[in-house]
Amino acid sequence: MEVGVVYLGVSAAVPAYGRGLPSIAVMYRGLVYLFDVGEGTQERLVEAGLSPLRVKVVAVTHMHGDHFLGLAGLLQSMTMGGRREELFVIGPRGLLEYIEIVERLTGHVRSFDIVFREVEEGVVYEDNRVVIKAFRVCHGHVAAYGYVFEEKPRPGRVKLEKLKELGLKPGPYLSRVKRGESVIVNGVLVRPEDVLEEPRPGVRVVYTGDTRPCKTVIDVARGADLLIHESTFLESEASEAHEKGHSTALEAGLVAAKAGVKCLALTHFSARYRELDVFETEARRNFGNCVYAARPLLIHPLRL
Amino acid sequence: MEVGVVYLGVSAAVPAYGRGLPSIAVMYRGLVYLFDVGEGTQERLVEAGLSPLRVKVVAVTHMHGDHFLGLAGLLQSMTMGGRREELFVIGPRGLLEYIEIVERLTGHVRSFDIVFREVEEGVVYEDNRVVIKAFRVCHGHVAAYGYVFEEKPRPGRVKLEKLKELGLKPGPYLSRVKRGESVIVNGVLVRPEDVLEEPRPGVRVVYTGDTRPCKTVIDVARGADLLIHESTFLESEASEAHEKGHSTALEAGLVAAKAGVKCLALTHFSARYRELDVFETEARRNFGNCVYAARPLLIHPLRL
Repeated sequence: MEVGVVYLGVSAAVPAYGRGLPSIAVMYRGLVYLFDVGEGTQERLVEAGLSPLRVKVVAVTHMHGDHFLGLAGLLQSMTMGGRREELFVIGPRGLLEYIEIVERLTGHVRSFDIVFREVEEGVVYEDNRVVIKAFRVCHGHVAAYGYVFEEKPRPGRVKLEKLKELGLKPGPYLSRVKRGESVIVNGVLVRPEDVLEEPRPGVRVVYTGDTRPCKTVIDVARGADLLIHESTFLESEASEAHEKGHSTALEAGLVAAKAGVKCLALTHFSARYRELDVFETEARRNFGNCVYAARPLLIHPLRL
Repeated sequence: MEVGVVYLGVSAAVPAYGRGLPSIAVMYRGLVYLFDVGEGTQERLVEAGLSPLRVKVVAVTHMHGDHFLGLAGLLQSMTMGGRREELFVIGPRGLLEYIEIVERLTGHVRSFDIVFREVEEGVVYEDNRVVIKAFRVCHGHVAAYGYVFEEKPRPGRVKLEKLKELGLKPGPYLSRVKRGESVIVNGVLVRPEDVLEEPRPGVRVVYTGDTRPCKTVIDVARGADLLIHESTFLESEASEAHEKGHSTALEAGLVAAKAGVKCLALTHFSARYRELDVFETEARRNFGNCVYAARPLLIHPLRL
């Protein structure tokens, strides 16, 4: 699987029915980009067959305990596993304080560097292939963010008939062409714009963290491949959802419809609900495309 | 079950094979006395059918992350569950700091009081029925403790033939006699010393936390019903055990034999070992009584 999402924990606040506390792993070309890291995340990573050493970025949405208390243990296990590579950590300022204090109290000596970035709206991480952007959500008075995981546009496919016209066969030189370079092959100039189709848009995944239905979510999620939206409650508890700064499944469906996303995943379920099917039914009343309630260790492949 | 132990997590350092991080629940008359509280403890409590609201005491052996990082989440879930009753927390001074800092960072408002007691050798908790004592163990330079959970002696059984001699039948008055009171029943003076057999010794459970084979463990565990001794390694890694301040299964068996305990439970297994049977085999070379490797959610009833 080249790109996909693995749900590690889908409970709100209190873990129930083995659902685990919030954590979502975006898998991208063998690396893991982790969004929220609730207690127990490191165990679920291992259950999912993902080594903590493959985690490149940890991004935390806000400083409620269920969303970050698994970070300290995960960092310790990375050291126990002999990690050397730097880890990118994104979140509110307090997250760094949490890391530092636990390390002071435990005397734990980390074997790798942390590159910490305090979350604010806009691009918070970027490498050759992916960009992570943060956006403010609507979770009461809490400084809470959501994240967009965005693959950069990929090079267009090779026009094979065009190669043939040039008297060339496909070869390793094409990887350089796909990186945007012009190369001379058997005396023939091969330019990207001649032999490649239009760049293909990358995959885009949006994760809300905790939020009321929120205009910024609709804006950033427009046309996304996958919107992972919290739905702590059902519509029968709509007023409680409102009071506590959360969403109902019906509301999440409406946000997904307004944003025109391809697929909606519901998560962050209150422990009072044993069954999750009804969340899907409720969201479908507003959104006709693909909808599902995330389950722990469920995998959603976005490109095989 | 009136008294018993439920193993919640039995891994060392890094959780492996679903074994969970260190936490042991002593169940006593409907209450839970928790020893160590590794990440994931609150989930395992619930899996074991034990509500966090039943936890009376949390005692932490030392400030290594795998032994206490589950505390913050457990406290939050107690509040979510509406706990009002005070919780007794015992551990190194840094444990209280950890609680306070997480509450500051998260803005979490606890619904109940914590009675914190900094661990030192001797009695650290006592109520009508049980006593918890701490003792220093041998875990390198770390200030690490083990705990003894001790039931106070129980009143002797009623001598039914003696009651008959006094012309009395058993009745509710006996509960007062068992509390040590003399009572007059149908004009007859009934004194505890006349109608009760000798007090029966209470159950005694000793938990080492992390330690090398240690003389204090042998001293406090003498004749205990159950010694829960760490055995991070097998004898093939004896020198590593020595360096890191841990014990092998063979060594744990020797401690159990010297202390003459009734039963030895091994725990705190390194992730490098997939199979646990060999720990039992190794310990049995030194100790002929009941020996087992603890498994998560395994229950050891001490009195039904």
